[in-house]
Amino acid sequence: MTISDAVKLLEQNDDYLILTHRRPDGDTIGSAAALCHALRRIGKTAYLCPNPEITEKYMPFAEPYLAKNGFEHSFVISTDVASEKLFPIGAPEKADLCIDHHPSNTGYAARTLVWGDRSSNGEIVLEIIKELCGGIDNEEADLLYVAVSTDTGCFAYGNTNANTFRAAAELSAAGAAVAKLNKILFRTATKARMLLEGYMLSSLKSYFDDRLNIVTVTLDMMERSGATENDCDDIASIAGRVKGNVVGVTIRELEPGLCKISVRSTEAVDASAICAKFNGGGHKMAAGCEISETPEKCAELIFEAVSEVMT
Amino acid sequence: MTISDAVKLLEQNDDYLILTHRRPDGDTIGSAAALCHALRRIGKTAYLCPNPEITEKYMPFAEPYLAKNGFEHSFVISTDVASEKLFPIGAPEKADLCIDHHPSNTGYAARTLVWGDRSSNGEIVLEIIKELCGGIDNEEADLLYVAVSTDTGCFAYGNTNANTFRAAAELSAAGAAVAKLNKILFRTATKARMLLEGYMLSSLKSYFDDRLNIVTVTLDMMERSGATENDCDDIASIAGRVKGNVVGVTIRELEPGLCKISVRSTEAVDASAICAKFNGGGHKMAAGCEISETPEKCAELIFEAVSEVMT
Repeated sequence: MTISDAVKLLEQNDDYLILTHRRPDGDTIGSAAALCHALRRIGKTAYLCPNPEITEKYMPFAEPYLAKNGFEHSFVISTDVASEKLFPIGAPEKADLCIDHHPSNTGYAARTLVWGDRSSNGEIVLEIIKELCGGIDNEEADLLYVAVSTDTGCFAYGNTNANTFRAAAELSAAGAAVAKLNKILFRTATKARMLLEGYMLSSLKSYFDDRLNIVTVTLDMMERSGATENDCDDIASIAGRVKGNVVGVTIRELEPGLCKISVRSTEAVDASAICAKFNGGGHKMAAGCEISETPEKCAELIFEAVSEVMT
Repeated sequence: MTISDAVKLLEQNDDYLILTHRRPDGDTIGSAAALCHALRRIGKTAYLCPNPEITEKYMPFAEPYLAKNGFEHSFVISTDVASEKLFPIGAPEKADLCIDHHPSNTGYAARTLVWGDRSSNGEIVLEIIKELCGGIDNEEADLLYVAVSTDTGCFAYGNTNANTFRAAAELSAAGAAVAKLNKILFRTATKARMLLEGYMLSSLKSYFDDRLNIVTVTLDMMERSGATENDCDDIASIAGRVKGNVVGVTIRELEPGLCKISVRSTEAVDASAICAKFNGGGHKMAAGCEISETPEKCAELIFEAVSEVMT
């Protein structure tokens, strides 16, 4: 399916309900809201399907577009949703059109537009809106900048490429409030998150010339910092920042005597093999397991397991 | 002076010595090294002037281009150097051509090319090399990506604009190793820096509904983390990350009984007025002072001073 095919479909139908994915991020919210805004610009009725998991950080971008009770849709679009298992709680069961950038998309929708080489779904929605409306306006530029920038970690992740930067240049030129959005999205953290990172980083233990790095998040740290689940985004990547790191481990105390272990590695070491020793699993460079021990004991066990592959 | 004027000058002369600025950052190093590489591509002899302040982080980008003893230059170019006061230790006293993006450039060179609206000097050097060589190669793309990305904090700072993203797209398309460079430049920190951030963040104290945020760096934290001056880049911006922050204060213990205070603020509060109470000064949104007291006492004094403007 081409961009033009998708645009034709959007022109022919009406009363759109747009789905975001479970545990929604900036890409699904920004893509959905921008598309909703563009559909309204060409005279269509369009709303976002309420998603009870939208966090405080992204709610301001979604809120103006959320469907109220009683809205009767006739066409369902999903944006950035790789599988129907990721439909938000309370959503319809089927989608008429899926717009996505995940190569793993399961093809669950009646029609599917997937560009698997794009770093964000926002880049695809940008092309759709340009053809649908002849250009993007300020509001769409802001929303798509949220999508593109968050899915690439402000252009720092490995998925960032020339297309990402081209899209960002277009959005910036079209009036996206880049400085303001960057400040909100990437240069602001709750006081609780700042304290939690402080306690986590202070717990850093490094071994094998800093190739193995372990940080711990205890129940006590959560309590002292006042952090909630929303403050724990992406904490599993922190240990891996240490210069020379090969295996970064995050030990999170879930309850007294039970810890969740996240292992991230470079290509040199198989993270899933380490976790398999504790009946866990995952991918080669990102895996996890649970161990029924204290955080200190978990660190010892992980050290021993890693010792077998790192000398 | 136009890009074409600068290119003509570069074509007409030879035996180039290229200056970076004191306390060199990625923009001055990346700009200088890329220009040096391009000049060599058109058959010129070109070297970077040794700069004793180049840190470990940026040395790999500069090293292949550094002049050895005995190189006799006949033309001096400065890149990203706003004033002759910023010439590196041991540099010649005069420059024949200055390429810079600082609107504050003092015009010290015989010829000056300043584009004050660019977020990085690398964007200007990109235009020069394109005209000088008919395009950029892989190596220049890498070096200019270092320049553009570091001067914008990986596209997160307020100076990032459509031109920045356009340059990044060109560099990425020309083969810049974006993922690898991002990892080195933005997603890696020494173990000492990680621990220091941990101790600093753990010291966070917030007042006035998180509008005033104070962090402390003590001599003890420096010692326990093993941090050196190189690990202290940009620490003054950390307190300002707190959600709701208006005034972010960093108290750094320089010696027992003497602290350096850095105050960063939003437009709502005049940071220099706060520092003036302690015989310091600076700009409205970034100022500093020294106080001959313990860190704890400094925090009290700063709290009192801020209380007068924040209620």
